[in-house]
Amino acid sequence: MPTPNSSMNPTQVNFNSPRKFRTTLKSKCKETFFPDDPFRQFKNEKPLGKAKKTLQYFVPIFEWLPQYNLKMFRFDLLAGITITSLAIPQGISYAKLAEIPPIIGLYSSFVPALVYAILGSSKHVAVGTVAACSLLIADTIGSKVSSKDDPTLYLHLVFTAAFITGVFQAALGFLRLGILVDFLSHSTITGFMGGTAIIICLQQLKGLLGVSHFTTKTDVVSVLHAVFKNRNEWKWETAVVGMAFLVFLLFTRYLRQRKPKLFWVSAMAPMVVVVLGCLLAYFTRDSKYSIQTVGKLHKGLNPISIEYLNFDAEYLPYTLKAGIITGIIALAEGIAIGRSFAIMNNEQVDGNKEMIAFGFMNIVGSCFSCYLTTGPFSKTAVNYNSGCKTAASNLVMAIGMMLTLLFLAPLFSYTPLVALSAIIMSAMLGLIKYEEAYHLFKVDKFDFCICLAAFFGVAFITMDMGLMISVALALLRALLYVARPAACKLGKLPDSTLYRDTEQYAEASGPPGILAIQLGSPIYYANGNYIRERILRWIRNDEGNGKAVKHVLLDLTGVTSIDTTGIETLAEVLRILEVKHIKMKIVNPRLDVLEKMMKSKFVDKIGKESIFLCMEDAVEASYDFSATTEKQGFEEQRSGVA
Amino acid sequence: MPTPNSSMNPTQVNFNSPRKFRTTLKSKCKETFFPDDPFRQFKNEKPLGKAKKTLQYFVPIFEWLPQYNLKMFRFDLLAGITITSLAIPQGISYAKLAEIPPIIGLYSSFVPALVYAILGSSKHVAVGTVAACSLLIADTIGSKVSSKDDPTLYLHLVFTAAFITGVFQAALGFLRLGILVDFLSHSTITGFMGGTAIIICLQQLKGLLGVSHFTTKTDVVSVLHAVFKNRNEWKWETAVVGMAFLVFLLFTRYLRQRKPKLFWVSAMAPMVVVVLGCLLAYFTRDSKYSIQTVGKLHKGLNPISIEYLNFDAEYLPYTLKAGIITGIIALAEGIAIGRSFAIMNNEQVDGNKEMIAFGFMNIVGSCFSCYLTTGPFSKTAVNYNSGCKTAASNLVMAIGMMLTLLFLAPLFSYTPLVALSAIIMSAMLGLIKYEEAYHLFKVDKFDFCICLAAFFGVAFITMDMGLMISVALALLRALLYVARPAACKLGKLPDSTLYRDTEQYAEASGPPGILAIQLGSPIYYANGNYIRERILRWIRNDEGNGKAVKHVLLDLTGVTSIDTTGIETLAEVLRILEVKHIKMKIVNPRLDVLEKMMKSKFVDKIGKESIFLCMEDAVEASYDFSATTEKQGFEEQRSGVA
Repeated sequence: MPTPNSSMNPTQVNFNSPRKFRTTLKSKCKETFFPDDPFRQFKNEKPLGKAKKTLQYFVPIFEWLPQYNLKMFRFDLLAGITITSLAIPQGISYAKLAEIPPIIGLYSSFVPALVYAILGSSKHVAVGTVAACSLLIADTIGSKVSSKDDPTLYLHLVFTAAFITGVFQAALGFLRLGILVDFLSHSTITGFMGGTAIIICLQQLKGLLGVSHFTTKTDVVSVLHAVFKNRNEWKWETAVVGMAFLVFLLFTRYLRQRKPKLFWVSAMAPMVVVVLGCLLAYFTRDSKYSIQTVGKLHKGLNPISIEYLNFDAEYLPYTLKAGIITGIIALAEGIAIGRSFAIMNNEQVDGNKEMIAFGFMNIVGSCFSCYLTTGPFSKTAVNYNSGCKTAASNLVMAIGMMLTLLFLAPLFSYTPLVALSAIIMSAMLGLIKYEEAYHLFKVDKFDFCICLAAFFGVAFITMDMGLMISVALALLRALLYVARPAACKLGKLPDSTLYRDTEQYAEASGPPGILAIQLGSPIYYANGNYIRERILRWIRNDEGNGKAVKHVLLDLTGVTSIDTTGIETLAEVLRILEVKHIKMKIVNPRLDVLEKMMKSKFVDKIGKESIFLCMEDAVEASYDFSATTEKQGFEEQRSGVA
Repeated sequence: MPTPNSSMNPTQVNFNSPRKFRTTLKSKCKETFFPDDPFRQFKNEKPLGKAKKTLQYFVPIFEWLPQYNLKMFRFDLLAGITITSLAIPQGISYAKLAEIPPIIGLYSSFVPALVYAILGSSKHVAVGTVAACSLLIADTIGSKVSSKDDPTLYLHLVFTAAFITGVFQAALGFLRLGILVDFLSHSTITGFMGGTAIIICLQQLKGLLGVSHFTTKTDVVSVLHAVFKNRNEWKWETAVVGMAFLVFLLFTRYLRQRKPKLFWVSAMAPMVVVVLGCLLAYFTRDSKYSIQTVGKLHKGLNPISIEYLNFDAEYLPYTLKAGIITGIIALAEGIAIGRSFAIMNNEQVDGNKEMIAFGFMNIVGSCFSCYLTTGPFSKTAVNYNSGCKTAASNLVMAIGMMLTLLFLAPLFSYTPLVALSAIIMSAMLGLIKYEEAYHLFKVDKFDFCICLAAFFGVAFITMDMGLMISVALALLRALLYVARPAACKLGKLPDSTLYRDTEQYAEASGPPGILAIQLGSPIYYANGNYIRERILRWIRNDEGNGKAVKHVLLDLTGVTSIDTTGIETLAEVLRILEVKHIKMKIVNPRLDVLEKMMKSKFVDKIGKESIFLCMEDAVEASYDFSATTEKQGFEEQRSGVA
């Protein structure tokens, strides 16, 4: 491009021969599966050091234990005791949601917590069960086997689902497919959690009102119908006690919001409710005001359950479905939580490594009478606020839980169901994030729709349908992003060398005779047609406004990649423009794009002299040649008529 | 940004208040559904003119008929006769593929051609049946109802599938969902067509070898197994005749490739083969060398079949599946062909309008004993080469077909099956595009994989599975494009003001203390985590190499849109960088992105003074402030320690 101004930008487009396939494949695989470059620390190590670092990488306890000291332990001990006091009531409550014996809930805070303390890389995550997944398991497994008619088989299927979850999570981690979890968007999770909270709260009306006949369905309509159909079973005594507990719990939550330092009050409150409830139930046990309790809880540690895992083909579809869906949700929750607390402390969490830890936790757990566990938000937040320093707080919780199981379990058999309902309700009410939904509404309407779809889907259809509809909408949007990339017309800003979107900067105006277009996002099969139509539409518009277009300049700065259909599209546009006697020029193609243009001979078709490094050069060149071009175009037209 | 150099680029980022939701929604819907702006011609019209143009828009015959003249008719007549001579053998052959009576194939070139002549907007498309869809219909419907045991029910279900195809196609067109067809990539179609051609060719061994026992499966293994299992049925007479026909047909095809002007030889060749075959069969009919023929063909036009449409719930899943899958394939073929010939003539085809035309063609066709029709490649190419000027050539073909049905049909009952097999094989061999696959391999390995998946899926599993695997792979790629956007590190080119990818331009090097990053493609939930990790990795790398990073400059020129998760990601990065005492600056945010940043208060967080119109300004500003910044950072650090 021997233009007068080229001295200003002496560097030309780099037409070096394309990189080898192996090089590009390697770099792409790295970006896809190892974006956080987890092995960078091994690079300059000797074999022994490498082995040590590898062990530390896969078993993080070896990383922090050597530096562990008494001062750290003091913090972890306090945090561990606090989360234990939360784990007991939550464990019992969520086990009731999953329709399994309450003791399983206690078991699930013992073995998995031990495993996570060894393998987990987050310092703040506290292991425990979660309400949404508990309900989802009950919903999925319960659609095949009734927890009332065949509780043993049902329980074994729940263990099996946890085992499948574990294998699935560990496999995702080993295959570095953390990318899958990225496709559960924040909007989906907000909506899903909100919807789940609503249906779980409504379900608690059963315990709160003391109704004994109820529905197994989870949607709002069925649940409300069941509540009001059995009006005659309502008991005012339970209702009064339940409301009192609920008000107390909500008050402590409110207190925490006002004075964050009092977080321990709300952390201890469920335990207080359980103890009060136990006392109440114990003293009224023979009176006419007796209230329903959870029933027998045996002393003793987790029995081994590996022989109960049931992979019968008849039940496998249900356990697989429950295992995989809850596995993804549990990962999304656990990893997101771990990450957000790590960011607060300027640390890094390797999502894929966490998946492996969660996976092993569930595999081992399912062999020791535990069901699905993850790092739930509420418990982790309490752990963080209690000042935990390492995963040792989980160890403390495990020991606390062990002592409870060995000595105190029978005491909790007096826990009234209504107390559990109050605990669950107060936890769930905190998961409905109005402000978040409003924020989505204000900033991005499509995100808001994705959130609403999850919310209403969960509330009115089923939990898994709600989730899937929302994920499908989010994927649709991702595809629309690429199918309809935002292209814009560029104009020159007055008194500068910058070319910017004419819609955004009204003062920018195109050089006469030149149509400068900036294409964004990859050009490929799904948007090839669109891009061609869009470019032709701009030409028609300009011509319709009486402006002759002589040159079309395509700025490819924003085009990160192109496929064969994309290149064919550009070749087609080139052909159409040639017929119209319009010259096409390419500005600043990126590495990947230029390589494919060279491999497919597009560069030969358009000519190297038509590819520029910046818009300014391309415009200059257009003016230099335009006199010649016009003459040539005119002559071609004449010969066409002749 | 009061930098000394700001006089060079006096315009600042435009912080006007965001556009209204209605405005953006309208513009996005327009880009999504009306990218070709089909109603632009109505804009400056009076009501009467508008009505006329609307009629012409929806019924294109009103557009071209008034200007029609004898000279055009001469061309259309010739083209019409040529395609009629192709339509008769192809119609009979493909009807055999679909396992329906051969006469249906003739009917299908009569009524649908009439409808398309009225509604179709392409000048070159010639209506007819297609091999791939015929086989797919046989495969899908045949899996429920056997064409041998219950031919009447089978035929009615085929009509029903065509009706469903029509409704589906018309609905897509009315809803302007042409975008769906864009998701069938060129690579998928190449592989699918190749795989289909292979299995159809192998199936023709049945006719060519005169085997009467055969399999209904379509995959290569089953078909070859059936051919060789029935070795004892092979007849050398048919094989010889068949090979002779095939060689003749392939020779005419070769001739056309060498001398494109002789295209009519290859267009007429199938008819010649049929006539020769009929003569042969007629004269050997009572000898011991008698060959199998298609059997009775009755005189008469299409009988009405609307009362046979069968929407029984038992068969509906099969007819729906057949109708929708073949509908999409037929659209992809018909529209792509129409478009590519229109581009050659510098005309425009409205994909959504074509869908409506194809849809009505199939709806009306299914009511008059026709099965699925579209604009097949071979016939359309012949039509174009014969010099057709308007859709009137379809009208000529319809009349030719009417005459055939009324007077000549019985003559074709002597058509030998082996002649049909030879015609189908020669047509199919042309659909295997080795060079295209090789081109894909050279330019884009992933596209090649998509193509291979379709090819082997169709050849070794089933047609629909092959298609779906390939489409899924292509979608996966589209999602990967957005989940792992190519970001790059920018450096300043020596002696210029340009910042370019340091990997692409080795001579580009970053200004010291500044990390300039160009992000491509939308930032949203599926790539938020990746982008954060990527930015942090660059910072770590630079710091690892002993270069302190003081400023991170994010060039958002290539970021066409952002969602709430994306903005949160940027806010997170900002927070992390603040902890590290690194300043973050945003360069050239596009309209959509800036609007969302303002709505979500991100602009307030980062400060308007940290958003720049071009990289140059941002770098200047970094240097101006860097002295202050360093001091400030130092003080912050000190107070942090205290």
